[in-house]
Amino acid sequence: MNPDITRERENATFDVEKLTHILDGGIEKTKRRREIESLVISDPDFQSEDLNFLSRSERYDAAVKKSAQMILKLREYGISDPEEIYCYKSVFRGHHHEALGLHFVMFLPTLYTQCNKQQFKKWVPLAESFKALGTYAQTEMGHGTHLRGLETTATYDPATQEFVMNSPTITSIKWWPGGLGKTSNYAIVLAQLHTQGKCHGLQAFIVPLRSMNTHIPLPGVVVGDIGPKFGFDEVDNGYLKLENVRIPRDHMLMKYAKVEADGTYVKPPSAKLTYGTMVFIRSMIVGEAAHALAKSCTIAIRYSSVRHQSEIRPGEPEPQIMDYQTQQYKLFPLLATAYAYKFVGQYMNQVYHRITGDISQGDFSELPELHALSAGLKAFTTWTASAGIEVCRMACGGHGYSRCSALPDIYVNFVPTCTYEGENTVMMLQTARFLIKSYRQASAGHQLSGIVSYLNESERSLQPQSVSSRPTVVNVNDLASLVDAYKLRAAKLVELAAKSIQQELQKRVSQEDAWNNSAIDLVRASDAHCHYVVVKLFAAKLGEIGDTGVHSVLSTLALLYALQGIQQHSGDFLQTGLLSVPQLSQVSQRLKELLAQLRPNAVALVDAFDYRDEMLNSVLGRYDGNVYEHMFEWARRSPLNKTEVHESYHKYLKPLQAKL
Amino acid sequence: MNPDITRERENATFDVEKLTHILDGGIEKTKRRREIESLVISDPDFQSEDLNFLSRSERYDAAVKKSAQMILKLREYGISDPEEIYCYKSVFRGHHHEALGLHFVMFLPTLYTQCNKQQFKKWVPLAESFKALGTYAQTEMGHGTHLRGLETTATYDPATQEFVMNSPTITSIKWWPGGLGKTSNYAIVLAQLHTQGKCHGLQAFIVPLRSMNTHIPLPGVVVGDIGPKFGFDEVDNGYLKLENVRIPRDHMLMKYAKVEADGTYVKPPSAKLTYGTMVFIRSMIVGEAAHALAKSCTIAIRYSSVRHQSEIRPGEPEPQIMDYQTQQYKLFPLLATAYAYKFVGQYMNQVYHRITGDISQGDFSELPELHALSAGLKAFTTWTASAGIEVCRMACGGHGYSRCSALPDIYVNFVPTCTYEGENTVMMLQTARFLIKSYRQASAGHQLSGIVSYLNESERSLQPQSVSSRPTVVNVNDLASLVDAYKLRAAKLVELAAKSIQQELQKRVSQEDAWNNSAIDLVRASDAHCHYVVVKLFAAKLGEIGDTGVHSVLSTLALLYALQGIQQHSGDFLQTGLLSVPQLSQVSQRLKELLAQLRPNAVALVDAFDYRDEMLNSVLGRYDGNVYEHMFEWARRSPLNKTEVHESYHKYLKPLQAKL
Repeated sequence: MNPDITRERENATFDVEKLTHILDGGIEKTKRRREIESLVISDPDFQSEDLNFLSRSERYDAAVKKSAQMILKLREYGISDPEEIYCYKSVFRGHHHEALGLHFVMFLPTLYTQCNKQQFKKWVPLAESFKALGTYAQTEMGHGTHLRGLETTATYDPATQEFVMNSPTITSIKWWPGGLGKTSNYAIVLAQLHTQGKCHGLQAFIVPLRSMNTHIPLPGVVVGDIGPKFGFDEVDNGYLKLENVRIPRDHMLMKYAKVEADGTYVKPPSAKLTYGTMVFIRSMIVGEAAHALAKSCTIAIRYSSVRHQSEIRPGEPEPQIMDYQTQQYKLFPLLATAYAYKFVGQYMNQVYHRITGDISQGDFSELPELHALSAGLKAFTTWTASAGIEVCRMACGGHGYSRCSALPDIYVNFVPTCTYEGENTVMMLQTARFLIKSYRQASAGHQLSGIVSYLNESERSLQPQSVSSRPTVVNVNDLASLVDAYKLRAAKLVELAAKSIQQELQKRVSQEDAWNNSAIDLVRASDAHCHYVVVKLFAAKLGEIGDTGVHSVLSTLALLYALQGIQQHSGDFLQTGLLSVPQLSQVSQRLKELLAQLRPNAVALVDAFDYRDEMLNSVLGRYDGNVYEHMFEWARRSPLNKTEVHESYHKYLKPLQAKL
Repeated sequence: MNPDITRERENATFDVEKLTHILDGGIEKTKRRREIESLVISDPDFQSEDLNFLSRSERYDAAVKKSAQMILKLREYGISDPEEIYCYKSVFRGHHHEALGLHFVMFLPTLYTQCNKQQFKKWVPLAESFKALGTYAQTEMGHGTHLRGLETTATYDPATQEFVMNSPTITSIKWWPGGLGKTSNYAIVLAQLHTQGKCHGLQAFIVPLRSMNTHIPLPGVVVGDIGPKFGFDEVDNGYLKLENVRIPRDHMLMKYAKVEADGTYVKPPSAKLTYGTMVFIRSMIVGEAAHALAKSCTIAIRYSSVRHQSEIRPGEPEPQIMDYQTQQYKLFPLLATAYAYKFVGQYMNQVYHRITGDISQGDFSELPELHALSAGLKAFTTWTASAGIEVCRMACGGHGYSRCSALPDIYVNFVPTCTYEGENTVMMLQTARFLIKSYRQASAGHQLSGIVSYLNESERSLQPQSVSSRPTVVNVNDLASLVDAYKLRAAKLVELAAKSIQQELQKRVSQEDAWNNSAIDLVRASDAHCHYVVVKLFAAKLGEIGDTGVHSVLSTLALLYALQGIQQHSGDFLQTGLLSVPQLSQVSQRLKELLAQLRPNAVALVDAFDYRDEMLNSVLGRYDGNVYEHMFEWARRSPLNKTEVHESYHKYLKPLQAKL
């Protein structure tokens, strides 16, 4: 054990184990999680080669192998609880993705929810036995977030009772679905349904892609891998061009909408049902943001405690880089953010499960709010976490750039969350739509409830109007007071966005153009709303914590989170008259004090995330702090070191020397 | 040609070609640059396979091949002007790096400047004929920016008149030098000189690494590749462990310091000489920041003009995504930043060459200012450009994540500039040191000249003290007035940082601790100083432009750049009383107008950067806008598509299906 890191742990002022229980949701959950992790880590099949040293084809091969192993092992161990499966897989996969990911996340769930009885009987057993390896083909080369724009067609032919599937244009080629390129033999394809000369919009169809015996693509199916990406090396994101592919009528998923034998289209009863899945996936992504940032902080903070560099006082030994105020200022607010997002993730998960109960009883009342919240929070957390991972990486100096730090991997595999499952700016504007609607309702005299109740007239009338007209009431040392300040900022920025739309309308532009011409303000309002929710939930979490030591350190983190957000957005708080200039100086001063106060607990706070070395897979983030020996050992395994002299020397350098 | 992009070009209000000449520094320079580019692009040897489809070893192989080719071709064509060589190489290399990069950038220049006459005669011909392939081994596993911390030793043995080179600890292993792993047979090694029982600090030594005949590592030399990184795949960044390697006395570079035969150490005359190289490299990096951001904007803006998505007005066709205000707000300020950095790069280059003349005549007076400025601007521009590349990438939605966009490559190969040649935070603090020193001189009554003259007492007394005491004079529509505002902000933040140090000192902490406890404020002050310099230089450039159309569009860009910086740092401007709250609303409103105003010129403005398709190597950034056909064609070339059925199907999936 590196003595620096041992000393850090000795200096901690709270019980790390207790904090871990809080993060897991209880001592029993921690215990079970650790059991599952040990199951993976002690498994000889887990000891695979470092993916960093493999080619993309080898990485894909390794991922398929892992997916197959995981399926067999989960059955062998009888793990069936979704949370436990998730835990098992995330250890097994590391920072990477599952080759059969979409089979589990989209193909199976869609079959469960959208098959009618006969379809269920036929397809679910095929999918659960992996005879049908499936993916979900929605996005097209020319079409992403805007579903109505999809071009793939399914034209019903009553003569043969078949659908004829086509990709009529180059932009209609399905593009990006995971597992589509090489792995899947089936896809659920989203296509525009045409029957009896009319288009009835998007429906889902089961399309066979490859022979179930030979895995060779079927006639009319042009399928393949879309090529290398920033990350996701192990996933065969694919393309699919359909050329008059005929499928039987019962390959359209018919639980809701139907096409009868003669081609008559029967409408579905309600459209709101698909909301739930989106909310669920987005709330999962918030959890992933917490996870990615927590891992990155673990690596950067442990490394900062063993890395010595430069000098603060001349003549003294080089200090730990964590002693630099600038290093603390980079890392500790991100650490606070990781904790904040962990708690937001817990909250969203709870709300989702509660509301799901309501939905199954036909009560959709809370869904719009949750839908709007999940969209904004997904964007808010993924943007911050992505940028934060890179800050952590660069805080490790040059070594952060090495793949042995694991930080490049964490970044490239997390950052697509900013674009997938709803592009972030579009998500922010969805939340803004809900906020503006709520604001207008409140202005029209309706009483709002829930998280947007701060938009009620009665609340807004309490807001400060300008610096001079009213004394500032925010206490920068009191978290509750800061939560209030965030709330008032959000209210003010929603109001500003609404007024911007109003001003545009007065110029006689259309509603839609007024919206677009105010989009910067709308995103800003959503951002403030999400920030308020995060600060509020972090503060609320403190109320649940009994242990004094843990409560104290988390309170410091929460205060740091709130104050740093104020400093970063100080313009908003000054502009809206919520803070005065002298208070802002207090905020800066207080922030510095909080950094110094957190310094002794930094390593313990990342230890509490409880990532085992095998999960971090980072030489810089090792628990024992013995970084350099292992970096050397890792480097020696680089494929370029397999030979003493690389062939390029004989091919190019020696001939060059001879020529000159 | 895609009709959307043709229409964009038709709508431009200025002469693209004229702007290109300004960027190149004159019509003749544009002509010559294009000649050189054509030389590369029409060369059959340039038509190499897409690196994205190769393994790392293959990429390294391809890079060595290219380096060898480039050397022969430059001689064949008689290109010897450094700027022209730079141009030739940057087309040939694409977004990637040169396998022999450090041979040219560090090994040769160090020989030129630090060899004495005999050494020069021996080593320069060997290096220029590539018999000696060299690198520059400075950083060690445990030591980066802080040079005094380096541990490698060179101990003089008068008995044999040799130096004994050693890596005494694991942390002393040389780590990161480019070309060290496999390519180089020599290295200039920085080591602590020990002679006659005393350490005399760092000196440079020529150390043979590999046999000049067989390229096999010599006894005592443990050398290899440090393994895969975030980018730089084609470079063999290496490690070097020296185990009692003996080199003759004349392998120490002895132009300045010397060790005599008996071991007597002779001090060098001056230490300031090394400043120049650092300044040069950092000003080059500023140019690289402009380059990387300009390429990224070209890709994202062209793609935004051909990509259609979602709807602004219901029932109408999907609009070009560049019509969304949020998209404009992401991209146009970055476009303005790219232009700003181009002009800053030009300025630094000019100043460097002017000052170099002075230095060669023994006049070092301007060097400290330039050194401080180059440090801060290197950090300021590389941070913004790195973040900006990612904004451009994500503004391309999902397709930005594909390697076919080229944006991942641009990012990973540019972002290490934030850490190398001086870690950015350290750089900012170096600039801050100069600013604080200047501030103190001014406070002590000295009259400052040059770029920090705004810190003079007389200037500072003109600053507004608070919102109420003095009317605000900034005109948000006038660039000169905004330059003033940036200047006053910088002055105020330097003052704040100086006062923070003062307050710390009053708590009786040491100078060094006071400095560290104020580091956040110091970085903030440097940032404001650099921002002021950039805005000022952009504004100054406008004065040189005669053409009305070009002047008009660049003025809009400059105003956008200045106003967006104010919006992002609105807290600073409010806090220092430079702007009032109503003015800030004017800034927001004006920004929106400027975005709309730039919209018709956006494509023309990136066209003016004049990157040929072969240099961008981006499917999304193609000049003709025909994105989708080429994306499909590119994808089909993915190595995973070489076989219809990947071997992993037979190895893992079929057996899995059989088992269940």
